[in-house]
Amino acid sequence: MKIGYLGPKGTFSYEACREYCKDKQEMIEYKTIPETILALENMEIEEAIVPIENSLQGCVTDALDTLIQNEDIKVKDELILEIKQNLMANSNLSLKEIEEVYSHPQALAQCKNYLETNLPKAKIIPVESTAFAAKKVSESSKNIACIGNIACLEEYNLKLIQKNIQDNNFNKTKFWILSKSESKKTTKNKMSMLFSVKDKPGALYKVLEIFNKYNLNLTKIESRPAKTVLGEYIFLIDVLIGASQEELAIEEIKEKNIFVRILGKY
Amino acid sequence: MKIGYLGPKGTFSYEACREYCKDKQEMIEYKTIPETILALENMEIEEAIVPIENSLQGCVTDALDTLIQNEDIKVKDELILEIKQNLMANSNLSLKEIEEVYSHPQALAQCKNYLETNLPKAKIIPVESTAFAAKKVSESSKNIACIGNIACLEEYNLKLIQKNIQDNNFNKTKFWILSKSESKKTTKNKMSMLFSVKDKPGALYKVLEIFNKYNLNLTKIESRPAKTVLGEYIFLIDVLIGASQEELAIEEIKEKNIFVRILGKY
Repeated sequence: MKIGYLGPKGTFSYEACREYCKDKQEMIEYKTIPETILALENMEIEEAIVPIENSLQGCVTDALDTLIQNEDIKVKDELILEIKQNLMANSNLSLKEIEEVYSHPQALAQCKNYLETNLPKAKIIPVESTAFAAKKVSESSKNIACIGNIACLEEYNLKLIQKNIQDNNFNKTKFWILSKSESKKTTKNKMSMLFSVKDKPGALYKVLEIFNKYNLNLTKIESRPAKTVLGEYIFLIDVLIGASQEELAIEEIKEKNIFVRILGKY
Repeated sequence: MKIGYLGPKGTFSYEACREYCKDKQEMIEYKTIPETILALENMEIEEAIVPIENSLQGCVTDALDTLIQNEDIKVKDELILEIKQNLMANSNLSLKEIEEVYSHPQALAQCKNYLETNLPKAKIIPVESTAFAAKKVSESSKNIACIGNIACLEEYNLKLIQKNIQDNNFNKTKFWILSKSESKKTTKNKMSMLFSVKDKPGALYKVLEIFNKYNLNLTKIESRPAKTVLGEYIFLIDVLIGASQEELAIEEIKEKNIFVRILGKY
């Protein structure tokens, strides 16, 4: 079975994909998140793993917007990855020897205090991805380092200078495993759904009232523009399920709303 | 009085700023949205104008996150700008003569159909901003064009090849005028506020119930990560006000929530 992810090798999506597959599936890399989802839509792959939310950056809008546009894709499961940043170089350098540090701007931002304290003289150079930074360092003969995922060590034959250099441990990313078929789990705990409301977002309260009536606890709410009029939204909601009350809630919501789509129960 | 905006000259923020100022204020350009807001925080300027939401792209997270972190900044007013894209070149070229088209990826995406129909053979080159594309075209002697704001014509001495080439007219951006003092408008129609809820986002429904009780109509809701635990959020809400019921609602919400901040009434 083939599963798609946002490449190149060494990205956090790559790490999440490896954790999910445990080498049982063929991993196919794509250049962007929309391309990964479209490959699933076009049946080049049977599953796709995409980041959907980060605890510091919020919603991954690319992923959610592409999912909204492709109606027969389902959420099969979720996987939460702790984002750990590591300092890596092309040889066993001491901190003092490092002249330049390459990474994606977000990774650099996540290690700001570490860099200021430990590498005050190094030149900080933002590049397009952590994997690109690793590649750059692996190909250079200068005393340079990169910050990124530990998976880059192996992929780009780098040396680990220091592990877990991120400034705090709040950084987690939630990935969704997408498929054209529903989850086959026997116990399903969560439901993800999209809906839009008639008239103004004020009507959102009426929908949340229905969840409350059936004791369904919301764990997430996200709004995305409906891409028509400024101020019209599509909402993404995650709800904890269990006693099958959610079917009654969905029926009531369907009566009130223009558009309801169950992304998946898992 | 000084007002800050996201430069360089020719950006949509520049256009919004000109429309707001009507040449009565000194306009100061900044390189990023956070820098613009921090300049206000540090009192280098008295006002800042920043994009907060786009009808196609959604929330401008940079702006909202910086605002969340700077507690004494207030929303004084809003301004909605229709985003119109224009094809411009360094001389009066015919469409057939144009070999390359430069612009920001979002602007290129907004003119996708136009480009496919009218410039099928031109090479499309994404660059960091529409203003950078305009600068590049103005300095080149080749037959190249750029897509961007009409204000670039004057700023970069370009020729207009075709006006309003965006694929649809759904594209609007809402800007906020920020200040350290409150709006002095005599009639205020809208209130923007931030809040977080105790426990899970399920408690969000209890807050919306209060707005409903006082007949306050929500026109917007947005969630941003609280930057602590995955699944904890700060909500931004816009409410239509008028009969002063909002003070009662705010009191009730304060009793229920960890954190409430009124961004402004305007």
